[in-house]
Amino acid sequence: MRLRNNPEALDYLLSQEGLVYINPTDVKGKWHEIFGNDNPIFIEIGMGKGDFILENAKRYPDKNFIGIEKYSTVLTIAVKKAKNDEIPSNLRYLKEDAVRLNEVFDDEEIDGIFLNFSDPWPKKRHTKRRLTYKSFLDVYKKLIKDQGHLVFKTDNRGLFEYSLSSFANYGLTFEDICLDLHHSEGYDDNIQTEYERKFSPRGPIYRADVVVDKEKIRG
Amino acid sequence: MRLRNNPEALDYLLSQEGLVYINPTDVKGKWHEIFGNDNPIFIEIGMGKGDFILENAKRYPDKNFIGIEKYSTVLTIAVKKAKNDEIPSNLRYLKEDAVRLNEVFDDEEIDGIFLNFSDPWPKKRHTKRRLTYKSFLDVYKKLIKDQGHLVFKTDNRGLFEYSLSSFANYGLTFEDICLDLHHSEGYDDNIQTEYERKFSPRGPIYRADVVVDKEKIRG
Ligand SMILES: C[S@@+](CC[C@H](N)C(=O)[O-])C[C@H]1O[C@@H](n2cnc3c(N)ncnc32)[C@H](O)[C@@H]1O
Ligand SMILES: C[S@@+](CC[C@H](N)C(=O)[O-])C[C@H]1O[C@@H](n2cnc3c(N)ncnc32)[C@H](O)[C@@H]1O
Repeated sequence: MRLRNNPEALDYLLSQEGLVYINPTDVKGKWHEIFGNDNPIFIEIGMGKGDFILENAKRYPDKNFIGIEKYSTVLTIAVKKAKNDEIPSNLRYLKEDAVRLNEVFDDEEIDGIFLNFSDPWPKKRHTKRRLTYKSFLDVYKKLIKDQGHLVFKTDNRGLFEYSLSSFANYGLTFEDICLDLHHSEGYDDNIQTEYERKFSPRGPIYRADVVVDKEKIRG
Repeated sequence: MRLRNNPEALDYLLSQEGLVYINPTDVKGKWHEIFGNDNPIFIEIGMGKGDFILENAKRYPDKNFIGIEKYSTVLTIAVKKAKNDEIPSNLRYLKEDAVRLNEVFDDEEIDGIFLNFSDPWPKKRHTKRRLTYKSFLDVYKKLIKDQGHLVFKTDNRGLFEYSLSSFANYGLTFEDICLDLHHSEGYDDNIQTEYERKFSPRGPIYRADVVVDKEKIRG
């Protein structure tokens, strides 16, 4: 997505108080309060236009969802799309960069993480920017509960090959690997993202479901 | 391969003393002696008709190779094929079942292991028969040197998905994962097996290069 922050988008997001949180400094440890319940909280990091997280929120009313996106222009599209529909009470949006998530979430505040079609950063010198690079796994490890799942989907072969190694060498436990999600049995409950709909006709969608077993982390 | 042991094949193999070892009981710790040098030793488990191990032996004269196969009929085909050619002095054949390899190799006697197109055993109740199941990893871990590589290729998606999880959860270190070997750069030195030639036109060949770092094994 080549869209970047722009002032208009930011104005719109500012008007969505209570639904959209913009680089907040006072929410850490408060998310259950914000949702008004003790239900588990799931986040998608790099949400894009938001179909996936909205559909999750509708389908699973007993879970809470936060769609996280770095760029206000992209986030604005997601929020407007959702408002055309009806926004479920178990959904919030957060404008934030993944690197800062330990400022926004307390240790173990989150039950599960979704990463969908993260930017591939194919060049070797950009390895550290991949959202599955070990410095990001450090961030996720803190905010997620012990035994929480990280579920990652992508169509990008290079990114998936890299991420499998990154997950394994970090000491994450592999729960389920699927190398062709749209031609496999047992994934009928799969919720597609915008990128998934666009790219699945061109080749396999890869999916990894890994568990953060904190005793087994190698770091 | 539906071929099983037959008496004729066994007779032929028995005639190949010094080249073929048949369920031996007196070779453990003696393989460097057998080869007459201290070069590293690599084994292929479930060699089938043997093209891969023969080509390796020819290409890498400073390494030793042992092709291991459970069935004498299959092994006979491999040995006869090789004898039509010229058998390099750094190659031996072993008729043995993978489960018994700790009786045949001493701890740390082996430098690297190849598994190519292992039988997939797709049914869940047959999981324990897969050559990447954890009880086999226990066998490999003992006979391989610390930091030795296990390189696994297959066209079978289900087996590869399973094996990635099995490797990761055992604590093997992922060196390199490739999800489409024949359409990737950097693998020009790949040596094809019979199964690989047969099945690569039908879909991707998967490859995992994992390292046995004995301190990191979870078991
Ligand atoms: C390729 S898009 C995929 C969008 C969506 N998940 C989908 O599957 O359709 C990746 C998204 O991640 C966002 N993103 C990239 N790096 C990020 C970061 N460090 N923190 C938060 N979002 C990020 C991008 O702005 C972009 O919207
Ligand atoms: C599908 S074939 C592949 C042959 C060859 N590696 C290739 O890629 O062309 C698998 C081979 O493994 C052998 N095999 C299966 N289980 C084995 C075991 N437990 N120990 C040794 N060999 C075994 C089979 O007899 C068969 O020859």
